[in-house]
Amino acid sequence: MSVAESVTELASGPVIGVFDSGFGGLTVLRALVERMPQARFVFLGDTARLPYGSKSQRTIARYAAESARFLVEEQRAEFLVIACNTASALALDAIEAAVPVPVLGVIEPGAEAAAAHTKTGNVMVIATEATVASHAYAAACGRRGVRAVEKACPLLVPLVEEGWTDHPVTAEVVRIYLAELLEAARHAGLQPDALVLGCTHYPLLRGVIERSVPEGVTVIDSAEATAAEAARRLATRVRGVACETVEPAAGPQIRCFATDSVAKFERLGSRFLGHPVGVVELVDLGG
Amino acid sequence: MSVAESVTELASGPVIGVFDSGFGGLTVLRALVERMPQARFVFLGDTARLPYGSKSQRTIARYAAESARFLVEEQRAEFLVIACNTASALALDAIEAAVPVPVLGVIEPGAEAAAAHTKTGNVMVIATEATVASHAYAAACGRRGVRAVEKACPLLVPLVEEGWTDHPVTAEVVRIYLAELLEAARHAGLQPDALVLGCTHYPLLRGVIERSVPEGVTVIDSAEATAAEAARRLATRVRGVACETVEPAAGPQIRCFATDSVAKFERLGSRFLGHPVGVVELVDLGG
Repeated sequence: MSVAESVTELASGPVIGVFDSGFGGLTVLRALVERMPQARFVFLGDTARLPYGSKSQRTIARYAAESARFLVEEQRAEFLVIACNTASALALDAIEAAVPVPVLGVIEPGAEAAAAHTKTGNVMVIATEATVASHAYAAACGRRGVRAVEKACPLLVPLVEEGWTDHPVTAEVVRIYLAELLEAARHAGLQPDALVLGCTHYPLLRGVIERSVPEGVTVIDSAEATAAEAARRLATRVRGVACETVEPAAGPQIRCFATDSVAKFERLGSRFLGHPVGVVELVDLGG
Repeated sequence: MSVAESVTELASGPVIGVFDSGFGGLTVLRALVERMPQARFVFLGDTARLPYGSKSQRTIARYAAESARFLVEEQRAEFLVIACNTASALALDAIEAAVPVPVLGVIEPGAEAAAAHTKTGNVMVIATEATVASHAYAAACGRRGVRAVEKACPLLVPLVEEGWTDHPVTAEVVRIYLAELLEAARHAGLQPDALVLGCTHYPLLRGVIERSVPEGVTVIDSAEATAAEAARRLATRVRGVACETVEPAAGPQIRCFATDSVAKFERLGSRFLGHPVGVVELVDLGG
């Protein structure tokens, strides 16, 4: 690295790579930007190969490792956030083996937030089929002495992508899913007091979901928990930069890449990110 | 080919390759088996790379051509049915260029059946986003002097895969989609008297859809229309075999391959095929 490059990098904060199979992970990026407005972000959505949720562990691990290498080797990310529950559940080891930088998935921070919150020691998790089949949340909660009951909710992602985030059909689907989940919890003799949103699309349904949960059950967003943990780990570098050298930028510094379907990413992404995603660059990872 | 192999092949009818991005195309296979119980079928679901519907034309063409080559070169299919609306709409030329056997997609037979039926010369088509964005049905209808109004219905595939084929939520979603489609038709000054099911998942919703269409609108299934056209083209060979040499087999001769998620294929496939799919063999096409 030249002196000029090194100065630029110091002056503009760390480069944080954020990876998802699609663009749902933009909800995690949104939370990261809110916590670390001085950092620079490079987001990759592996849209050519989504959804990971219906694929095998071997395939998911290969795709995720290729994507992580792109962010680190070509985009010089110094810290990786895996903003995809499926990849976090099934491919975190493969990603860590593929790149020489710290890697943070969304499962552990979500489980940590749930464990910090629950008083009964019982929580509920809603997620995609693949995440639930992996039982990654139940295992992560179990390591913290918390029992989790999980449920796959495969209709919620398509409802979000249809834009029906505040629609009677979505409210009815959420009601049905949560009734089944509460029944399963009761059947297992559990009294859950928290519901973890274990999919990056679900924060867009937070309003509908909060109106459906029983009193005394708190909704916990893995995206927010992950952003908080990333900010904690990067605290010294981000704070150092913020205090010493940098004026707050006019807007967040975000560069977005997708492996396919750039138009859909640009069209839908802004709902997830909370502001326009701008130009999305196409990248070919093969496959 | 040895004499023994050649005799076996003659004795057991043509090998028909059926290709889909997933297992929705099993509804087309079901219709094919009903029409040609003497034929042998090799089905490939490219489940590792589904859904094609959200991918670019270039990517879809490459995946579909690779899949077609597997069916022809490795499984010795002599006739190919592309039981996938998206691949039929966007990759038929690429597939025809990739293999030396006749290729039949689902779009032309669906449009032909709609044109044969309509008296007003106006039809409606429901399909996935990619199929609608391609306007392949509108173009195929237009070549027959028929005007088509199309609508993407992205929630219907996940509703079928959730198993909610006869569920109040599905009925409500279908009602909303069809109301929007009828409004668009009226706005264009059209009086449609047919509705084409332009996605291989939709035959499983035929009951719900038929209860939702206005009187005087006939539901036309592209899967059935495609099977009828395939049987017509293969008539001599199939009839020849049936009359001269072969006892009807105990069950249909079907071999199923998938590029991933064999378990999901086996679990859900029987609903589409109408009887158990049996063992699904895993095949790696790369990517």
